[in-house]
Amino acid sequence: MNKKPVIIDTDPGIDDAMMLIYAFASDALDVKLVTTEAGNLSQAKTSYNAQALLSYLQVDVEIAKGLEHPILRPLEVAEDIHGETGFGTITFPAPTLPLSERGAVEAMRQVLLASDEPMTIIATGPLTNVAALLLAHPEVKPHIAHISWMGGSAVGGNMSPTAEFNAYVDPHAAEIVFRSGVRITMSGLDVTHKAYVTLPEVARIRAIGTPFAQRVEQMLTFYLANMHETPFHTPNYSTTLRFHDLCAVIAVTHPHVFSGMDCYVSVVVDGQAAGTTHVDYMGRTGLLPNAHVLHTVDRDAFVDLFVDAVTRMNERVQDA
Amino acid sequence: MNKKPVIIDTDPGIDDAMMLIYAFASDALDVKLVTTEAGNLSQAKTSYNAQALLSYLQVDVEIAKGLEHPILRPLEVAEDIHGETGFGTITFPAPTLPLSERGAVEAMRQVLLASDEPMTIIATGPLTNVAALLLAHPEVKPHIAHISWMGGSAVGGNMSPTAEFNAYVDPHAAEIVFRSGVRITMSGLDVTHKAYVTLPEVARIRAIGTPFAQRVEQMLTFYLANMHETPFHTPNYSTTLRFHDLCAVIAVTHPHVFSGMDCYVSVVVDGQAAGTTHVDYMGRTGLLPNAHVLHTVDRDAFVDLFVDAVTRMNERVQDA
Amino acid sequence: MNKKPVIIDTDPGIDDAMMLIYAFASDALDVKLVTTEAGNLSQAKTSYNAQALLSYLQVDVEIAKGLEHPILRPLEVAEDIHGETGFGTITFPAPTLPLSERGAVEAMRQVLLASDEPMTIIATGPLTNVAALLLAHPEVKPHIAHISWMGGSAVGGNMSPTAEFNAYVDPHAAEIVFRSGVRITMSGLDVTHKAYVTLPEVARIRAIGTPFAQRVEQMLTFYLANMHETPFHTPNYSTTLRFHDLCAVIAVTHPHVFSGMDCYVSVVVDGQAAGTTHVDYMGRTGLLPNAHVLHTVDRDAFVDLFVDAVTRMNERVQDA
Amino acid sequence: MNKKPVIIDTDPGIDDAMMLIYAFASDALDVKLVTTEAGNLSQAKTSYNAQALLSYLQVDVEIAKGLEHPILRPLEVAEDIHGETGFGTITFPAPTLPLSERGAVEAMRQVLLASDEPMTIIATGPLTNVAALLLAHPEVKPHIAHISWMGGSAVGGNMSPTAEFNAYVDPHAAEIVFRSGVRITMSGLDVTHKAYVTLPEVARIRAIGTPFAQRVEQMLTFYLANMHETPFHTPNYSTTLRFHDLCAVIAVTHPHVFSGMDCYVSVVVDGQAAGTTHVDYMGRTGLLPNAHVLHTVDRDAFVDLFVDAVTRMNERVQDA
Repeated sequence: MNKKPVIIDTDPGIDDAMMLIYAFASDALDVKLVTTEAGNLSQAKTSYNAQALLSYLQVDVEIAKGLEHPILRPLEVAEDIHGETGFGTITFPAPTLPLSERGAVEAMRQVLLASDEPMTIIATGPLTNVAALLLAHPEVKPHIAHISWMGGSAVGGNMSPTAEFNAYVDPHAAEIVFRSGVRITMSGLDVTHKAYVTLPEVARIRAIGTPFAQRVEQMLTFYLANMHETPFHTPNYSTTLRFHDLCAVIAVTHPHVFSGMDCYVSVVVDGQAAGTTHVDYMGRTGLLPNAHVLHTVDRDAFVDLFVDAVTRMNERVQDA
Repeated sequence: MNKKPVIIDTDPGIDDAMMLIYAFASDALDVKLVTTEAGNLSQAKTSYNAQALLSYLQVDVEIAKGLEHPILRPLEVAEDIHGETGFGTITFPAPTLPLSERGAVEAMRQVLLASDEPMTIIATGPLTNVAALLLAHPEVKPHIAHISWMGGSAVGGNMSPTAEFNAYVDPHAAEIVFRSGVRITMSGLDVTHKAYVTLPEVARIRAIGTPFAQRVEQMLTFYLANMHETPFHTPNYSTTLRFHDLCAVIAVTHPHVFSGMDCYVSVVVDGQAAGTTHVDYMGRTGLLPNAHVLHTVDRDAFVDLFVDAVTRMNERVQDA
Repeated sequence: MNKKPVIIDTDPGIDDAMMLIYAFASDALDVKLVTTEAGNLSQAKTSYNAQALLSYLQVDVEIAKGLEHPILRPLEVAEDIHGETGFGTITFPAPTLPLSERGAVEAMRQVLLASDEPMTIIATGPLTNVAALLLAHPEVKPHIAHISWMGGSAVGGNMSPTAEFNAYVDPHAAEIVFRSGVRITMSGLDVTHKAYVTLPEVARIRAIGTPFAQRVEQMLTFYLANMHETPFHTPNYSTTLRFHDLCAVIAVTHPHVFSGMDCYVSVVVDGQAAGTTHVDYMGRTGLLPNAHVLHTVDRDAFVDLFVDAVTRMNERVQDA
Repeated sequence: MNKKPVIIDTDPGIDDAMMLIYAFASDALDVKLVTTEAGNLSQAKTSYNAQALLSYLQVDVEIAKGLEHPILRPLEVAEDIHGETGFGTITFPAPTLPLSERGAVEAMRQVLLASDEPMTIIATGPLTNVAALLLAHPEVKPHIAHISWMGGSAVGGNMSPTAEFNAYVDPHAAEIVFRSGVRITMSGLDVTHKAYVTLPEVARIRAIGTPFAQRVEQMLTFYLANMHETPFHTPNYSTTLRFHDLCAVIAVTHPHVFSGMDCYVSVVVDGQAAGTTHVDYMGRTGLLPNAHVLHTVDRDAFVDLFVDAVTRMNERVQDA
């Protein structure tokens, strides 16, 4: 099978960890580079977490540290959701994988220009690095096939009533990316709130019984404790887990698990609603679509793919 | 039964017409004053429509013409939804009820100050008149028990991806009202999209068989043709009718038909997201609730109340 | 001589006090009503100060208390400039003049509608009352000949780099007034910074030698201590006194003391530059002028008018 | 004399041409790289003009083409001031100097990292390239001694009442640069309006009598025809020439010709006042200065430096 060459831009974080486990367990992806975003935590913590997790997963990949701050806003982190270290109460051994000598933007630029085929960028944090790349080096655009982003939302937010976290943290970056002309798939809250995992399903992971599986389960349990529901959204938040970032990678490996709609998306960059992704689902702007916005998921297929990936990664980590 | 004294501020419009039929058919309300908003149509048209409809309904009430323009934005109307005249293809005989010699703000001020008990304001358009009243004459506030407004939305808009029409047309007015300290019930799209009427239910109105019932049914049919659905909202828009404004009056006569949540609501007044009602359903602002935001309706009860009101009004109009 | 009927809307404040002394000393003006703004100080303080000063001046006039807060922004006051009481270290005897039973907006409405000829409004604070009046009661517009406002600035501010205090405190009010269609003269910082009084000129007031003159001089001296200069504006701030509010009244009694330019003025209501008056002195908007913006003053004539007014008022107060 | 290594980022344009003539005539500067901005004209035109002018001046320098568009706003150009080609009615022979194979941001990055000593960036257009560099590659910051920018204004604008052209075209870029932590000298309209050249002074250039001098004089004359004055600014615009961009280079070679003030500068990025540089000359923000803002010039010295440079360049071009 021909593996897709990808760059992963991430701010781990618990659901980023699940996404990374999935990505490195997948036969469909060839991860050429991991770059880190400040977002769920500071750049110092997310880059350390990427090192620690990927060392633990025994993968060999370049990890390039990204930008320290959003383009024009002060950094806001989400340690209430991910814990102070970013992985809840779980810790990993000290990392053996080093940080690259080149920064995230320069690493992405060189990896893209060196690739024989256009690459996919899977981005699961704020888009600061990606925006800086596209802004400073528009010559890379023909080398990008697709950006699959977890972020934004058509209706309802989680940082403000209308803004999702990743878009909220760096709205200018998101808007630069949406205007870039590069093909984008947006896994916003609309779909990630439907791509949940139930406690009985998590039991399938616990049943694996290894220390690796235990770690994964403990991260999930920590995450669950910080969920809350509202009558304006759908279901059962107190007994379901939503791994937002997983959608962005599964949308690359198994796009048919999702349905979506082509829309023009802009990002509100100023005022009280900053960070709101304005998804023109009613076609009022008259502008041509610049993104494929996911809204529906085949949840059973989604859960199976996730549990399979954890199982497969479990074997690899056990072998070591 | 002790009738509630109310002022109705409206911009008829088809769903405003349904709301007015309901209000004047209701035994629970004593409508002391009707004031008109520019919104669905220009002030000239909405005040004429109020005169024409209320004359046809053979009610005796003061109709005071409201302000011509939103506080700081140019007027945008919705003739695509309501037709050029505002009642679809339906016309009414020339009005016999006059316009009051006093303007809407002055009339509201005097009616409120003259009332023995605090009054309820049912507002189903942009809030320009109400805001101007509260701003210029804060002394009326103790004379207002409650404002029941159709407008806004917690998640998802109909004028922009996040803004509902009435809030969008005059966001400064809405924000002034939400900050006024007066008790507010907000019937936003969250609940009005659930308070729909199906075509078989409309058949109950057609079955009445009188010219009045025919007129009502024709307005409803015109309105239906202009509905459209999106995958980010719920259901069946092409075969269901949503009479947004009805919620605001039934929330006064039968509040228990609805469920809601007390929240702090602010209105985005500037930038791309202007007109968005930011309903703090996650409690992130830490501010005390200033509104009761409806999110759920007992639809069967709602439909029965509407059909009963049309039936009752039909008898009155037939008697004449 | 036919006196001009005027309403004065003010937030005393030291320079408002000078303006009121001038206005009540003038043979050219018939002051029908004084209304108070929250601005330099809270509404409680400005209305008390108006009572105390006008009682001391032994004039007989209706004083109507205005609105408590700007339309959409929290109140910011300038007690650093005017002292905690508003008159520096000066106090006046307890007032004998009462506050009117009607509020400022209602009083203005009735006085305007009752006037045989169109009246002039001299406004030397934020424009909250005036905006609320024009918004809620557009029927008064034909009864207003002219609004002479101290506020705004074409180039350079004193609250932010681009915003003048009165416009900054309630930018929405100022924008409502500029859009109202009523004729406006704007005495902004452009001209008020040139309408200064030097210390030797103040000595002419001290030389009068009465307790009244002493009080005036002490207020001026307090005010001086709080001036500061910048290299981006013109002259000698540490030895000159700028009585901003005086310009707005002298522009009514002696318009030829000033030169100005007809411009379209809008007020920035949102974002970092809120409160900036955008004076289109380059004609880039293509919009028709809505204001006469003063830029030059015959300073000798201005100072003479001020000293004469203080002298004349001195005689009146002495007589008592 | 030890020459300062500099990068010039420019959008020629007539006054950019004067700045380039001065820079390449100067013994104090070693111009390592010229990068082009979209601004006065499109990127296609400014890069062509840089090639044509520098070829004509017979200098040998790398010219790297910059970014096509401002970061988040559509490009607005100033062909009314500079003519459709950018040099008024003057044309130059087809360029012999090529465009670099590397883009502006990459060229700046490499030149800076390769430099033995920290370099100075002289920027006389919008700051799009410089901002993209600082954003994507913060590792270059220690290699930049100083950015000397023509742009912004403390009081009064030329694109809007408060916004200067270069800041207006790309306010986000300007704000990114002002927040970068790099030392900045700002030659805004405050000083460039005082750094004018009179017609008798231009006669000194005409008197040189060569075709080169004639070309310079014709550019100046074209530029003059497009000046206009306002009563809110100072002097004689119809008979004086203001070569804004010259200030930014002379501020590097002869800083003592100017006086300035250390201030915190931020750029308004949204709303009606977008592009306004908020220079905190009153110290109201409490933030530490991030720029040296020029306000005064020794005009005689300034004019002598300019005429000397043209004379010296004339000799060089004549020699060829």
